[in-house]
Amino acid sequence: MQNKIIEFLKNSKNYISGEEISRNLKMSRAAIWKYMQELRRDGYDIVAVPHLGYRLVSSPDKLFPHEVQSNLDTKVLGKKIVYFDSIHSTMDHAFELGMAGEDEGTVVCAESQTKGKGRLGRSWSSPKGKGIYMSIILRPSLLPSNVAQLTLLAAVATCEAIRKTTSVAAKIKWPNDILINDKKVAGILTELSAEVDRVRFVVVGVGVNVNTALKYLPKQGTSLKNETKKMVSRVELLQEILRLMEQWYQRVNAEGFSPVMKRWKELSSTLGKRIRLIDAGGKIEGKAIDLDRDGGLIIRSDSGIAVKRMSGDIIQVG
Amino acid sequence: MQNKIIEFLKNSKNYISGEEISRNLKMSRAAIWKYMQELRRDGYDIVAVPHLGYRLVSSPDKLFPHEVQSNLDTKVLGKKIVYFDSIHSTMDHAFELGMAGEDEGTVVCAESQTKGKGRLGRSWSSPKGKGIYMSIILRPSLLPSNVAQLTLLAAVATCEAIRKTTSVAAKIKWPNDILINDKKVAGILTELSAEVDRVRFVVVGVGVNVNTALKYLPKQGTSLKNETKKMVSRVELLQEILRLMEQWYQRVNAEGFSPVMKRWKELSSTLGKRIRLIDAGGKIEGKAIDLDRDGGLIIRSDSGIAVKRMSGDIIQVG
Repeated sequence: MQNKIIEFLKNSKNYISGEEISRNLKMSRAAIWKYMQELRRDGYDIVAVPHLGYRLVSSPDKLFPHEVQSNLDTKVLGKKIVYFDSIHSTMDHAFELGMAGEDEGTVVCAESQTKGKGRLGRSWSSPKGKGIYMSIILRPSLLPSNVAQLTLLAAVATCEAIRKTTSVAAKIKWPNDILINDKKVAGILTELSAEVDRVRFVVVGVGVNVNTALKYLPKQGTSLKNETKKMVSRVELLQEILRLMEQWYQRVNAEGFSPVMKRWKELSSTLGKRIRLIDAGGKIEGKAIDLDRDGGLIIRSDSGIAVKRMSGDIIQVG
Repeated sequence: MQNKIIEFLKNSKNYISGEEISRNLKMSRAAIWKYMQELRRDGYDIVAVPHLGYRLVSSPDKLFPHEVQSNLDTKVLGKKIVYFDSIHSTMDHAFELGMAGEDEGTVVCAESQTKGKGRLGRSWSSPKGKGIYMSIILRPSLLPSNVAQLTLLAAVATCEAIRKTTSVAAKIKWPNDILINDKKVAGILTELSAEVDRVRFVVVGVGVNVNTALKYLPKQGTSLKNETKKMVSRVELLQEILRLMEQWYQRVNAEGFSPVMKRWKELSSTLGKRIRLIDAGGKIEGKAIDLDRDGGLIIRSDSGIAVKRMSGDIIQVG
């Protein structure tokens, strides 16, 4: 009901009388008053003027499902949003939902995480109300070995969404970091539950440092606010990420993975650069020459031999 | 304590007095009597003769942890066994334990399953006390794309264990069935929880139709009892599977995957045969010519082109 009232207030430029709301939403004036109080507690600035009615002055910068879903226009992604003020980890919660049979497209998001997860068991700084911390459940027809494609897809969508929302030339660093001016502003984490020859579900997590102060971030991290010197609407950015992810996801289902590969390469900050890659097996230095279809990075070492790496951390050298 | 009494009774050929047990295990005669009652209820045939003491005549054919662990001599696999008289699915339970951080090597086994799982969402008939229904938690350093190696490893170990225990020439049908006389006697199911570039844990499930009557089995199924015309000890077979799986697992960690590949090919009923493979993408007919390192089957079609398939069902033709 609150959602309907907010929708109603948003769609009118002027004051609306309680009577009009009452008539349209078929509820008592007393109930409307009660909901207005609740909305104010949630951070909505609603003024009430005698004889004129109610007017919405501003909405809080919260990732409330009805805010994110308002004018979202996606078919699958975000049709259901599970929202928390604080949660241990949106990844873990989405994984549990996936285990319990949750539908494709459901999004778990939170204002803060107490145990935000990064890649390879690392943590993700998640201060309250500053970033986007969200995980999406997908049920693609993929082999486990091809799930890295979804990481690349999510990186493309997130990078494009940041570009569209802030006009900053974000880039993708292999395998799944989004950089602005060579500093990390967002990361993608993909987890899966699978049989050997069948994925049961995938959870794609996106973390973006939106209005995060640098003191909360690791040394090589930055936030959109820090780069643009402006506050960025988390709701609008999250909506854009969901829209673009859905568009790319539909396109992959229709045309295959090549368009994502092509776009990833255009947005890449890694290809063509001289890099050092460190993984469990040791380190290798050379030129990053290509992205393989399975998400692997092709590196040509100084001896001229090209090798592929599926995992690891890279730094640009020379 | 029951385990210690059973161990004690097993290790003596003759009657043992209550006094001797009491002295050795430091418990009262009354406690011993109570435990003997419980063991009898569990199906142990224990005779008690005045002035002579107790003697174990026979043990029940149950997969009690202390039975399976007796003389098991493995380092990791089966060090902890979680046993159920009945459970929905050993796979699902082991997966939940894996999510909660359970150590590598823990085995979940049950006398019966109410929702036994087969490959690709199929069911696995699990009548009480007749088969082996067990799942093992492993935490290998593998990429998700290499987890099929564990399925092949488990198929080799299970096939060898059946051969060793029954002297029947069991074979492996790609990807993960164990056949005797072209009928399915066992299956392997492997599930994983992973990030894109890191496996968190794997659950390898082994289902064997041991003393199962044909009426419980699908048309192309058989049981060890049906093939050998003898009852087969489930405890001994399970022990042998765990021992061989651990040996192969250690060998892979030391020498890499090639020895498993080689042994799998020797035990294969598929390679060299003309087959038809049906998967989500359609069907293909040709000669099964090789196993790829990632577990894929290489098929040479009549046009001479070799293709690889990672998933599907095959039937032998021609």
